[in-house]
Amino acid sequence: MSKPVKESAATATVTKPTDREIRIERIFDATRDRVWRAFTDPALVAQWWGRGNKLVIERLEVKRGGHWRFVEHSPDGVHGFEGRFREVTPPGRLVQTFEWDGMPGHVVVETAIFEELGDGRTKVITTSLFHTTEERDGMLESGMEQGLNQSYAALDRLLATFDDKKGRT
Amino acid sequence: MSKPVKESAATATVTKPTDREIRIERIFDATRDRVWRAFTDPALVAQWWGRGNKLVIERLEVKRGGHWRFVEHSPDGVHGFEGRFREVTPPGRLVQTFEWDGMPGHVVVETAIFEELGDGRTKVITTSLFHTTEERDGMLESGMEQGLNQSYAALDRLLATFDDKKGRT
Repeated sequence: MSKPVKESAATATVTKPTDREIRIERIFDATRDRVWRAFTDPALVAQWWGRGNKLVIERLEVKRGGHWRFVEHSPDGVHGFEGRFREVTPPGRLVQTFEWDGMPGHVVVETAIFEELGDGRTKVITTSLFHTTEERDGMLESGMEQGLNQSYAALDRLLATFDDKKGRT
Repeated sequence: MSKPVKESAATATVTKPTDREIRIERIFDATRDRVWRAFTDPALVAQWWGRGNKLVIERLEVKRGGHWRFVEHSPDGVHGFEGRFREVTPPGRLVQTFEWDGMPGHVVVETAIFEELGDGRTKVITTSLFHTTEERDGMLESGMEQGLNQSYAALDRLLATFDDKKGRT
């Protein structure tokens, strides 16, 4: 039996700290180790990253220089995403690039910080750096925030249920 | 018999138009169609891109969204480079990303413009956009300019000799 999910942080906080960045904060009701696993284990990523849609993990090499490529099968079509890891420091920091097939060669650098809150919850702070303000604003206008909240809601559900071999305290 | 190479533009002009860009100008003694082919035909790219060193073209898909990956075998080691095409408009404009395996996830957007000068020569203007000034300056301090001039000298030699099925006027 899993404990009930706290709904205290059901939407992400999205801000624009500079003219080429997006900053996203979201609290998850799980330890940092569990959240890290959900972001880096292909079997777990497949269950939440694609907004609840079918997600094929074609490649996910979680190491400096490793590549990743996911294909999301959504009602509005098939969307490919890919990038490469710049820095992998478990369980606190992950830096990678992000590119959508629909806008090839438009590359975002995403820095994710995983902060243990001390009460069994974890705050994930993601900062996305774009080459231009236009690309940053295009991302904000693309429905990104809604998609993000759908994915994070799927992650909430996963974190509440997934088998943790180390057990929970 | 090939005509003698004019040595009027033997080094590239490198400038910093903004705090995140590098601009490179270089004139080649060949028509725009020939220069375009030298930049996009794998058999030709292999002969000049790697500063005269052995270059393995693992992938070169010259189309929007296509990927490229080259591996240079130089006296100081093996270096991988890769990226993706954002825009391919023959024979005048090529936009692609560039990333060196030694600094994975540090992605440059390179826009190359091919200008016909009207006298059988072609000017190539490349503008590289970095995510940060630090990355731009790191590239400038890496010996980029020397490597670039070595590659372009190899390209001069190739352009003077390579078989052009369309013939030369």
